[in-house]
Amino acid sequence: MTQIKNAENVRLFALNSNEPLAESIADKIGLPISKSSVEHFADGEIKITIDESVRGCEVYVIQSVSDPVNTNLMELLIMVDALRRASAAKINVVMPYYGYARQDRKARSREPITAKLVANLLEMDQIDRLVTIDLHAAQVQGFFDIPVDHLQATSLFSEYFDKQGLINEDTVVVAPDHAGVSFARKFAERIKAPIAIVDNRADEGRNQGEQAVPEYVIGDVKGKTALIVDDIVDTGGRMQLSAQALAKFGAKRIFGIATHPVLSGESVNILQNSLLEKLVVTDTIHLNDDKKFDKLVQLSVADLLGEAIIRIHNHQSIDTLFNRK
Amino acid sequence: MTQIKNAENVRLFALNSNEPLAESIADKIGLPISKSSVEHFADGEIKITIDESVRGCEVYVIQSVSDPVNTNLMELLIMVDALRRASAAKINVVMPYYGYARQDRKARSREPITAKLVANLLEMDQIDRLVTIDLHAAQVQGFFDIPVDHLQATSLFSEYFDKQGLINEDTVVVAPDHAGVSFARKFAERIKAPIAIVDNRADEGRNQGEQAVPEYVIGDVKGKTALIVDDIVDTGGRMQLSAQALAKFGAKRIFGIATHPVLSGESVNILQNSLLEKLVVTDTIHLNDDKKFDKLVQLSVADLLGEAIIRIHNHQSIDTLFNRK
Amino acid sequence: MTQIKNAENVRLFALNSNEPLAESIADKIGLPISKSSVEHFADGEIKITIDESVRGCEVYVIQSVSDPVNTNLMELLIMVDALRRASAAKINVVMPYYGYARQDRKARSREPITAKLVANLLEMDQIDRLVTIDLHAAQVQGFFDIPVDHLQATSLFSEYFDKQGLINEDTVVVAPDHAGVSFARKFAERIKAPIAIVDNRADEGRNQGEQAVPEYVIGDVKGKTALIVDDIVDTGGRMQLSAQALAKFGAKRIFGIATHPVLSGESVNILQNSLLEKLVVTDTIHLNDDKKFDKLVQLSVADLLGEAIIRIHNHQSIDTLFNRK
Amino acid sequence: MTQIKNAENVRLFALNSNEPLAESIADKIGLPISKSSVEHFADGEIKITIDESVRGCEVYVIQSVSDPVNTNLMELLIMVDALRRASAAKINVVMPYYGYARQDRKARSREPITAKLVANLLEMDQIDRLVTIDLHAAQVQGFFDIPVDHLQATSLFSEYFDKQGLINEDTVVVAPDHAGVSFARKFAERIKAPIAIVDNRADEGRNQGEQAVPEYVIGDVKGKTALIVDDIVDTGGRMQLSAQALAKFGAKRIFGIATHPVLSGESVNILQNSLLEKLVVTDTIHLNDDKKFDKLVQLSVADLLGEAIIRIHNHQSIDTLFNRK
Amino acid sequence: MTQIKNAENVRLFALNSNEPLAESIADKIGLPISKSSVEHFADGEIKITIDESVRGCEVYVIQSVSDPVNTNLMELLIMVDALRRASAAKINVVMPYYGYARQDRKARSREPITAKLVANLLEMDQIDRLVTIDLHAAQVQGFFDIPVDHLQATSLFSEYFDKQGLINEDTVVVAPDHAGVSFARKFAERIKAPIAIVDNRADEGRNQGEQAVPEYVIGDVKGKTALIVDDIVDTGGRMQLSAQALAKFGAKRIFGIATHPVLSGESVNILQNSLLEKLVVTDTIHLNDDKKFDKLVQLSVADLLGEAIIRIHNHQSIDTLFNRK
Amino acid sequence: MTQIKNAENVRLFALNSNEPLAESIADKIGLPISKSSVEHFADGEIKITIDESVRGCEVYVIQSVSDPVNTNLMELLIMVDALRRASAAKINVVMPYYGYARQDRKARSREPITAKLVANLLEMDQIDRLVTIDLHAAQVQGFFDIPVDHLQATSLFSEYFDKQGLINEDTVVVAPDHAGVSFARKFAERIKAPIAIVDNRADEGRNQGEQAVPEYVIGDVKGKTALIVDDIVDTGGRMQLSAQALAKFGAKRIFGIATHPVLSGESVNILQNSLLEKLVVTDTIHLNDDKKFDKLVQLSVADLLGEAIIRIHNHQSIDTLFNRK
Repeated sequence: MTQIKNAENVRLFALNSNEPLAESIADKIGLPISKSSVEHFADGEIKITIDESVRGCEVYVIQSVSDPVNTNLMELLIMVDALRRASAAKINVVMPYYGYARQDRKARSREPITAKLVANLLEMDQIDRLVTIDLHAAQVQGFFDIPVDHLQATSLFSEYFDKQGLINEDTVVVAPDHAGVSFARKFAERIKAPIAIVDNRADEGRNQGEQAVPEYVIGDVKGKTALIVDDIVDTGGRMQLSAQALAKFGAKRIFGIATHPVLSGESVNILQNSLLEKLVVTDTIHLNDDKKFDKLVQLSVADLLGEAIIRIHNHQSIDTLFNRK
Repeated sequence: MTQIKNAENVRLFALNSNEPLAESIADKIGLPISKSSVEHFADGEIKITIDESVRGCEVYVIQSVSDPVNTNLMELLIMVDALRRASAAKINVVMPYYGYARQDRKARSREPITAKLVANLLEMDQIDRLVTIDLHAAQVQGFFDIPVDHLQATSLFSEYFDKQGLINEDTVVVAPDHAGVSFARKFAERIKAPIAIVDNRADEGRNQGEQAVPEYVIGDVKGKTALIVDDIVDTGGRMQLSAQALAKFGAKRIFGIATHPVLSGESVNILQNSLLEKLVVTDTIHLNDDKKFDKLVQLSVADLLGEAIIRIHNHQSIDTLFNRK
Repeated sequence: MTQIKNAENVRLFALNSNEPLAESIADKIGLPISKSSVEHFADGEIKITIDESVRGCEVYVIQSVSDPVNTNLMELLIMVDALRRASAAKINVVMPYYGYARQDRKARSREPITAKLVANLLEMDQIDRLVTIDLHAAQVQGFFDIPVDHLQATSLFSEYFDKQGLINEDTVVVAPDHAGVSFARKFAERIKAPIAIVDNRADEGRNQGEQAVPEYVIGDVKGKTALIVDDIVDTGGRMQLSAQALAKFGAKRIFGIATHPVLSGESVNILQNSLLEKLVVTDTIHLNDDKKFDKLVQLSVADLLGEAIIRIHNHQSIDTLFNRK
Repeated sequence: MTQIKNAENVRLFALNSNEPLAESIADKIGLPISKSSVEHFADGEIKITIDESVRGCEVYVIQSVSDPVNTNLMELLIMVDALRRASAAKINVVMPYYGYARQDRKARSREPITAKLVANLLEMDQIDRLVTIDLHAAQVQGFFDIPVDHLQATSLFSEYFDKQGLINEDTVVVAPDHAGVSFARKFAERIKAPIAIVDNRADEGRNQGEQAVPEYVIGDVKGKTALIVDDIVDTGGRMQLSAQALAKFGAKRIFGIATHPVLSGESVNILQNSLLEKLVVTDTIHLNDDKKFDKLVQLSVADLLGEAIIRIHNHQSIDTLFNRK
Repeated sequence: MTQIKNAENVRLFALNSNEPLAESIADKIGLPISKSSVEHFADGEIKITIDESVRGCEVYVIQSVSDPVNTNLMELLIMVDALRRASAAKINVVMPYYGYARQDRKARSREPITAKLVANLLEMDQIDRLVTIDLHAAQVQGFFDIPVDHLQATSLFSEYFDKQGLINEDTVVVAPDHAGVSFARKFAERIKAPIAIVDNRADEGRNQGEQAVPEYVIGDVKGKTALIVDDIVDTGGRMQLSAQALAKFGAKRIFGIATHPVLSGESVNILQNSLLEKLVVTDTIHLNDDKKFDKLVQLSVADLLGEAIIRIHNHQSIDTLFNRK
Repeated sequence: MTQIKNAENVRLFALNSNEPLAESIADKIGLPISKSSVEHFADGEIKITIDESVRGCEVYVIQSVSDPVNTNLMELLIMVDALRRASAAKINVVMPYYGYARQDRKARSREPITAKLVANLLEMDQIDRLVTIDLHAAQVQGFFDIPVDHLQATSLFSEYFDKQGLINEDTVVVAPDHAGVSFARKFAERIKAPIAIVDNRADEGRNQGEQAVPEYVIGDVKGKTALIVDDIVDTGGRMQLSAQALAKFGAKRIFGIATHPVLSGESVNILQNSLLEKLVVTDTIHLNDDKKFDKLVQLSVADLLGEAIIRIHNHQSIDTLFNRK
């Protein structure tokens, strides 16, 4: 495995969203997590102190903008403010899950574009680089003018299903709605499978309220092993309903794939009781025990991120990393 | 029709990309195009002079970033520089066609995001607002922090096909590739038609090189009137091949719809000789006579843009305009 | 009372931190709160939609950055993003309580200056003006380059104690620690009373952990009516201990005054059971019923803010407002 | 003593405010002052030329913004402009005395915040770091978004008085007015002495006009050795009057301490003829012979600044330096 | 004469460089100078307070950056800071003389470009417009991105010499060195006279040290009335030597013209004793009595600037004003 | 010759304007041109991909903004966008010919300042440095706040004419119009020759339309070898007419010198048939064979630029390079 150069000049910091992942990344790189303290006062304010010198160091801050979204985002912004004032040489933000990414355009009049707001907040705070995984829309890269290293978790999923012997001529990749076709198609290309689409007319951004089972599946799924591929699994509704629709149209086995397990509200029950055999996700978002359930498989992005940090620091190309099999 | 308020305080300017459209917009609004001169020197440099006072005026500059893309963009940037220095109060850019919009993300390593570069150039030049139509990806709105009024030409197309009696239970809307599903689906929703997708595996951004007829059409098109919907028709290849695929899968009648008629290279021949009955486009891009052909129908966005400018200037809501039928 | 001019051009918006205050301000001004919806999704993300046109309007958004601090701040930032994209002419933020104001300097190495970060976030979001009350340090005004209208609640307190007949030659104003002397002294000057200081050696910024009763009171309090004056009452510890110290040094009657009732943690019990006769605060922060207690008196800043908004909008001076009696 | 690393890559420049201090700092570091010429033309304009290459160098420019304040500030801004255009890699400004620091808030309506203006001018000029000593208000650090290394001269004063045998149980630290309590208290904590406050009701920012002797001293000074501690001694009025008030309240011996000896106008006479035994200051501001007087003791900050520059350049922590004894 | 519109919304402020000119401009416009106080403390700091409300007003601040250059510049920057924070709607800076304009390029390595620095300082301070007269190089306009109204004093000079009957076929316009040819030529075109050039090899930017009389005059001056035209007369050396050279080459009568009378150092003696019959200047720079001498004629730019302010405020074109005769 | 340090960390890129010069520079430096692909689509859009890693590299992009000016400028802006997103450490733009440099001021009302616009576009795109040769006006350096290394080609021309034996007491340097005097004079100083000026009253910026032979030559040219010196030769008109005027006034031999051979329109015929013996230019602009003619001599700036890049990269002074003989 690649070694990090000038290790004495590197600092890794973990904030509160996903410490286990940060620890795994640090192990992978072979460096400790540097010391900092993050206090949350009774009135809701956050206070951060960095407990070792970062002067002239290249710093990597690991934080997902997951639930509690706003608090995790503020932790990150405050940490960056402290690092800059403490004379860090470069501040790299490693954000496995980019919260608010679904609010990436004005779908209706007088809406904000909150994914851009988040980008503006980070650029205003003078971060030097963003490392992230499977953005909801690839265009979010363009919300930044600094370098964005946009990694893909696809290889983790194809490896997993390959090991299970589930990738063959009977496999079909399914986009759970129209907006997800581009994302699903990348996975289909990797495993050389055909694609189908659930004709889900609900709001693309987020499952809301009561929904009926979609009436159509576009494409051929009969008798096939269907892998529903999404970037985010949030309320679980879209996965559940897609599974029902696929069953109705004759799919033999049904699996769910989603990079980011937001798993909000009743999602755990919904998904455990759905027609999915398994839901395969990653650990970009840390899951407490009450968010874990039998059908859930969680793959780790620690190797991917650790290797990315090493290559970034060593000034090595990371595009082979994006596309590895 | 709505009247523009404080007309003495408004100036309309037209640059070279699309003067006929600018004239139609001006007619609609009931104001003349203000005088300016744009010289192109033998060495390729552009020189612009504004020939009447714009002090304290709200200015609307009408320019598409169409072929010659770079020259039209520079004309616009230079004009805005001149207007700002000449003390215009507000500079509104009306860009019916946003060139480079397809380069909206890094599809591969070490690519630029030129659609963001264009946004940055305009914001650096201190424009106050962008008015545009049918962006390739809605996320491009988020490339800006100024207000973007993003209009939709959908209503023009639905009116046209409605008049032709072609919108009925046999109509199916077809996305010519996976990336275009979201765009096609908006049209399908408006005319309450089902959707199908041509399983085109070529580069999403731009048709290149020799392409085979796509082997699959996802969704049911047999015996139907297929309306292929795209935002841009450029080389014509995707339209032509989609039409062939639809024919192979049994579509009875086939029409093309595209907001922006880039129509580069051999596209005129390709499309005239394709299986399309008609290709319906708008005049966001001006077409010289050699770009016009029998099957081409060009609808005008002048009313849409004229009404938008009036409402913007009057501080009236324009979302009813987006969604009118 | 002053009338607001061009009322049709004004929009008031209230976010979630303090709707009752916003309603009172709106009543005072004689305009309704405009419609907007703020959804909080199960995953913690916020979605805001503005439900009426704001094109060309001067907008006043009323939001305190109180508990939940980070969520209230993000609500505000997102709202401003939406307003700007919706073509509001001017965005004025009315922030009765400026959260994070106590983190206004690096007290130790490698700390952030979060009060400046908040200012940066707001300026990046392109707000046009901040209206706020009793900042923890007046220097926070300088964290902004836009106009800041910094109002003072002093007059509310002096009116209240005057009515109670408690302002006389036996009144002494007490600063609960060294850092608060400047703030307390402004009040002392208004009521022409002498000043005393509790020699509290705890961390200035925030009461923490177990604290002993301060051993000294600098200045003469024996037999007097002591008014302890602070900008913020948070955990209540400093008020309680100051009251004990004052009692030990012979003060006859002891009252607390604090503009912003943060009242976190156990503060309600601590203060109700303290040697204070009354704690007089304002409604810059909304208090739920469980935060209300017998000794608490809450005065409203609605008139102050309403009048300020009217004068700002009418381009009238507001400094007489700062200093009214 | 610490050695500076990569010395060939470091350049020290001195402008006109305080060359003797710059020379001492350079000696301490073991590097020469680099060559530059600063001409002042008869019409008041300044012309600077840098006389040796600074390409790729880390530059430290030493300049206090002391009288003539505006000229010294312009010298600095012009020098930074020249260094940036000459391709310096990093521009560190070492500003022992930060002029205009007392104008750090709007005390009345329609005032500027000139301390923030100075910060803006420096950041606009693209300096990379500010090193300064004992800012009038610690919040001025937050006027910057670049790293500010804020050093403290406290240790110099405590060493001096310790050597004089004046730090014992009879010592009391005195703040000459309310606004100075926080500053005085830091010194009191270091020497573990109690604190007293002169109840001076004059304008905090600057002594002006005729002033009466303050009527009160809050705290116990009777029979004690009183050390009046201030950040700046300007007209000398506050020191003189504080000394009189202390004498009236029975102080046995009275000394003045101030980091920055502005010593404007009649201050030399006032202070020499005051009840102070000694006035102890530093050399952050250069004093001509006519500003020196018998009671004045000037301690040098050269070691403090020299060591700070070395550690900054070596990327070593400097917080131990802040707090050394 | 043109009337200013919405006069209640206009504020004129004068700083210390040139109050008599400001008064004349105010008379011309028919509005009073608004009240502000500018204190200069003994330590060199400036404190400005604005003594009447400017909320929502369009403000014109009149200040030349003449000797004392740095102090006048800081007065201006501080005033603008105060105006912005006091909610002025638009801040127009009227700078009859733009100090540092001669430092407009790097003539040698490692020089600053101070004229650009001044532009940056003003733009950072968020001024909305600059009105100035006869910039040393027209390119300085491009140092700004805000509107610059660049007026010309040429008409004043041609009127004056016309009245004196000195403009006829024997008149020749003389540039006192190569760098001044473009400036002189504009005047020559206006009065339709030929041009000559003094072949002065000294530093273009500023006369320095001892200089010999230039050996050549390029062009025909024999028996003619020579008008030496320059933008600035500073030390007087260039005018004096040019006059000597012209005499040597046979000029019959010799006059000097310069828009900006910097008149530093020994210039008064030099010019009074020179071969010039008259030196005609304007009042962009205020001259104390000791700077006035028999040969000096000072024409006022008050009408020019007053008319410009009126037209700017009324949103009328001012180019006819540039070119009036 | 100087060796480049840390060569593995350097990347040279060439865009389409002047590949032969880029190759020569690369040879001089001893490094290859790095791989990138620049596609021009049929619709006029440009697509750039960088084909090797640039992470952490110091990049030099070589591109003249010559005909097609707008396309070459966009190529450059897009390339820089790609390099920045690809994590290049420093982006140095080597622009031998700076297009639009002649539009450097508002000569008339309501004109743009396009040379500043180009500077703004480059700074917005975050380039770190500009290296260029013989700007039309030296003030254009001040349009940038980043370092500009402004090289001079004078030495190439003096070497050439020296070798031809044409520099002697009979040589006179001629400025073809008033605006060009400063530029011509630098050359005259280098070769210690007197100067003359053609009294050309046409538009300084650009030769246009039919022009008469100028009636005057100011200065003595009779019997001399006249070297007409200009920065740009564009339509050839000014050179041709200057030559005629010089002949009329008795010049014996006439040569033209111009750094940048724009040579637009009919210039080749005009110049070949002019009274010039030779026109000596450089290769800052690439000339196709149809732009080459018998009288043309093209000297290469490759050594000058190659050496500049090496010294910039090595952090060595380059001013000796400017002034070498």
